[in-house]
Amino acid sequence: MTIKITGTGSYIPNTVKKNEDFYENQFLNTDGSAINAPNEVIVEKFKAITGIGERRYADKKLNTSDIAFFAAEKAIENANINREDIDYIIVAHNYGDVKYNTEQSDTIPSIASRVKHLLKIENPKCVGYDILFGCPGWIEGVIQAKAFISSGLAKKCLVIGAETLSRVIDPHDRDSMIYSDGAGAVIVESTNEETGGIIAHETATYALDEAHFIHFGETNNQEVSDKRRYIKMYGRKIYEFAIVNVPQAMKACLDKSGVDIKDVKKILIHQANEKMDEAIVKRFYKLYNLKMPKDIMPMTIGKLGNSSVATIPTLYDLILKGELENHAINKGDIVLFASVGAGMNINAIVYKV
Amino acid sequence: MTIKITGTGSYIPNTVKKNEDFYENQFLNTDGSAINAPNEVIVEKFKAITGIGERRYADKKLNTSDIAFFAAEKAIENANINREDIDYIIVAHNYGDVKYNTEQSDTIPSIASRVKHLLKIENPKCVGYDILFGCPGWIEGVIQAKAFISSGLAKKCLVIGAETLSRVIDPHDRDSMIYSDGAGAVIVESTNEETGGIIAHETATYALDEAHFIHFGETNNQEVSDKRRYIKMYGRKIYEFAIVNVPQAMKACLDKSGVDIKDVKKILIHQANEKMDEAIVKRFYKLYNLKMPKDIMPMTIGKLGNSSVATIPTLYDLILKGELENHAINKGDIVLFASVGAGMNINAIVYKV
Repeated sequence: MTIKITGTGSYIPNTVKKNEDFYENQFLNTDGSAINAPNEVIVEKFKAITGIGERRYADKKLNTSDIAFFAAEKAIENANINREDIDYIIVAHNYGDVKYNTEQSDTIPSIASRVKHLLKIENPKCVGYDILFGCPGWIEGVIQAKAFISSGLAKKCLVIGAETLSRVIDPHDRDSMIYSDGAGAVIVESTNEETGGIIAHETATYALDEAHFIHFGETNNQEVSDKRRYIKMYGRKIYEFAIVNVPQAMKACLDKSGVDIKDVKKILIHQANEKMDEAIVKRFYKLYNLKMPKDIMPMTIGKLGNSSVATIPTLYDLILKGELENHAINKGDIVLFASVGAGMNINAIVYKV
Repeated sequence: MTIKITGTGSYIPNTVKKNEDFYENQFLNTDGSAINAPNEVIVEKFKAITGIGERRYADKKLNTSDIAFFAAEKAIENANINREDIDYIIVAHNYGDVKYNTEQSDTIPSIASRVKHLLKIENPKCVGYDILFGCPGWIEGVIQAKAFISSGLAKKCLVIGAETLSRVIDPHDRDSMIYSDGAGAVIVESTNEETGGIIAHETATYALDEAHFIHFGETNNQEVSDKRRYIKMYGRKIYEFAIVNVPQAMKACLDKSGVDIKDVKKILIHQANEKMDEAIVKRFYKLYNLKMPKDIMPMTIGKLGNSSVATIPTLYDLILKGELENHAINKGDIVLFASVGAGMNINAIVYKV
């Protein structure tokens, strides 16, 4: 028995938010002081580091559970399974449903229950739950699906990553330009194939010093009196943490799998910052005394920004469906998934298509 | 190998909120109309149905992650394990950290990461994540721990249920008197004992018609203009749903376990409404043509209210530590855990101590 992804789907929101759309923002430093540069320069510098030129925001009337449902429908159709045969619906997110122009996260019922409701699945043995694990939540959901399948609890799992980060961003924080909305979904199931599928995985939680590198904090605008909080990060600390620990986790995972690094066809890494991703993957290859191969790391960050848990399943779906230029993944290829995010959590999967 | 609970701990908040403390509330019907009775009568009727005389609220300076940590410390001590050997920290909750007198749920980083940070665990291989599954979240966390252990991913898991529902209640809704704060934790681990531990489990998610029986909604006071939302429920629908489906799930679980119903020593059921719990357990025995035995169902609801995911682990901890009058659980006893809540989710575990 091998455990494989047999179907994928994603939902890319319609609204394109371009870098130029931030020209009117009043960006401030964390201490509330003005930034000594015009917005055009701030935005240009931002783009040079992160690689982000535009990002997507969900329509005002849609919430995380809606776009999760859209991606799920596509994955079910792509896997060509009967939805009533799904044993688990696992939804990774971080903020629940945050309605447009409101502050509160709505997590009752779980997003998984909402998705199951929208999918019109009747079978009560199809169990839906949500996992909160920062940006690596979707990979972790796949690892949990694997555990359920290998322990005999399940045969087919729907694993979704969906997020609407546009609803939790501080307009006075430059980092807000990173965040994006989106949803990606896969069907994970046991198959009769003898080899391949999920070969190895690795997960780590660094919380002693790192727990609050990504956190919920007030606006940079100290003239605002309300206590509303937003997603906030210590970018420099995250960068330094990630470039050391993510390559190590990727190596631990690959070594466990027994796969030769030269057989890795693509690395699908969480996309929060292009320069950081390049540094991580270069260091990963350096651990094997190799140079990073050309075209090993497909990127969507330029057009899609950082959609948290949705980034990797969306990227994988786009490549499989031939919608990402110059990148293809074919049957038998080895793909390395890797992510890092709030927690601070890191994980990786070595996967044979 | 058997998978057992080797340590328990709980945290019962200090602030006692008595029924009389609601005498000054302005309770309203869901349509905003006045309730034709003085508060003394409303409260008395509430008590007659639910059995709740008082409930506990967390200190203003404490959040869900803090009380989760308190319970976790006790469970680790009780299990007498090295905390660095814990493979998973699984935290069930529903609203994250909601600071006193604020509206927003704080779920970044996960509550599990915060608990790990507070526990000062260094080992990065100790993976912390949160599960959202309504009130049955703690039982589901135990089932997930079992899956991780039996699939070889883990040996020791810390499973916590923690919630501060006092932070999400509408003062104009009678149902608000149900909700309470608390935290319970257990260590689940593989042992060398040949029989016992978690013998069987059962889980179901009913979302087709039932998904929004418990939901997030606005205050009953239609003169309030803000859009703040609170935990809301359709009590009658939940009652009718629960008394049919929970006994069936309990029976499915018991039948799967092969344990004779006469060998069940205690039923530890989620406590949201005393009359409903009695109806569920009576119907469960009726499915076997038996009468409900005396003292089969220990209750804490009178003093502790409904603390969601915290209720069952707290109840179990109190009994094991000899802190619940007239109830004892001893080595070799069969205990049936059962829960129902938002989702709508139902689950059960047959457990041999």
